Amino acid sequence: MAHIPTSDGRPAWRASVLTLFADIFPGPLHVSLVGQALDAGLWSLTTHQIREFGLGRHRQVDDTPAGGGAGMVLRADVLGQAIDAARADNPESPLIYLSPRGRPFDQAMARSLASGPGVVLLAGRFEGIDERVIAARGLIEVSIGDYVLSGGELAAMVVIDTCVRLLPGVLGAPESLAHESFENGLLEYPQYTRPREWEGRSIPEILLSGDHRAIEAWRRAEAERITAERRPELRRPKH
Amino acid sequence: MAHIPTSDGRPAWRASVLTLFADIFPGPLHVSLVGQALDAGLWSLTTHQIREFGLGRHRQVDDTPAGGGAGMVLRADVLGQAIDAARADNPESPLIYLSPRGRPFDQAMARSLASGPGVVLLAGRFEGIDERVIAARGLIEVSIGDYVLSGGELAAMVVIDTCVRLLPGVLGAPESLAHESFENGLLEYPQYTRPREWEGRSIPEILLSGDHRAIEAWRRAEAERITAERRPELRRPKH
Repeated sequence: MAHIPTSDGRPAWRASVLTLFADIFPGPLHVSLVGQALDAGLWSLTTHQIREFGLGRHRQVDDTPAGGGAGMVLRADVLGQAIDAARADNPESPLIYLSPRGRPFDQAMARSLASGPGVVLLAGRFEGIDERVIAARGLIEVSIGDYVLSGGELAAMVVIDTCVRLLPGVLGAPESLAHESFENGLLEYPQYTRPREWEGRSIPEILLSGDHRAIEAWRRAEAERITAERRPELRRPKH
Repeated sequence: MAHIPTSDGRPAWRASVLTLFADIFPGPLHVSLVGQALDAGLWSLTTHQIREFGLGRHRQVDDTPAGGGAGMVLRADVLGQAIDAARADNPESPLIYLSPRGRPFDQAMARSLASGPGVVLLAGRFEGIDERVIAARGLIEVSIGDYVLSGGELAAMVVIDTCVRLLPGVLGAPESLAHESFENGLLEYPQYTRPREWEGRSIPEILLSGDHRAIEAWRRAEAERITAERRPELRRPKH
């Protein structure tokens, strides 16, 4: 695939996904602002079907775990070839394996990935992948959360969606990004809109005051209160 | 929708999703074991299009934030009606709003949800939802991770996928669940499969020994080593 430049001359951000279920892409990534940005060429999506690198007539991609146990493990030789093909197509981007054992994905990692050329994402299935391919290809293990999915495809979509909305030109109003959760280590303040009264509940008076400094101070205090109540560890430095 | 019992008499686990993008469901949830379980009636999926409850000729669902700021906020009156419709259809299940401000979703929450009747999931878009509807309808705020998605749909899919694979009969080999990440507070041990040698890298000898007690001990030690290196906080009690 040729590297398509965007209208302002920057190259499009490139997402490549290695998967056994290429048909489900772009799927949820093809709606709303992220989908419009795909159509506008602000980012590109390429899927690589792992099964094309499978062995024999049945294109086998997995085998039983060495040492026994339930389930099947994706083979290192098959994945190695699939990864090399994806790399050839997207050579500058970090190579990420989505796995519950990985480094937790967060907004800081999303900002870092969004500021680069793109990402190559390996979505596993079954019991996981042969450990040797992780070292041999330098895969970065990344986890979207402390739970176990039936495959890495949804995790890949989560990473792509989070990064793409940070790309220049994707959101209509870039200032939306400045106040949202995880900027400045805070969860977002509460939002309200019309109607002014609903089921006996009112919009807080301060938001209707027109006093922008007071509104800003209230929102900051609310963000700090909510963060302290719900996720005090977000305010503490991680390192 | 009628409540469809599964073949062993248990009612199907019911997922209901409130969304502005109903077309993207089931999408990624319709492949592999989770998709087969949907077709087999082990769980059911109903989407509720929020726009059907929108106001006026244009079915407006959102409005500008009270107090100013970028973006649009989903209206409490519209969401209140949409939620009430979804509740009528799935009255026993917890009502969850997917939000970066929520309680972190994890495997323990997935087990709890999977053992219940199902879940009603509200997927927001834009700047968020009017805060009043959270209190008025008792929404439980849940976050799939410390990052900001362009909407709650992918988060809803992540919650559903994680829960459905825990339902009885969905995974071919239930013993897979016992060793996977986050059971016993451990990340999973490394997996290997054929070929025995690949690019000069071997499967660890112990896994080829046939000594099942030694293999079990090695896997446990590896799981503990990886957890200690990568996520030591998982071993510490959270409360």
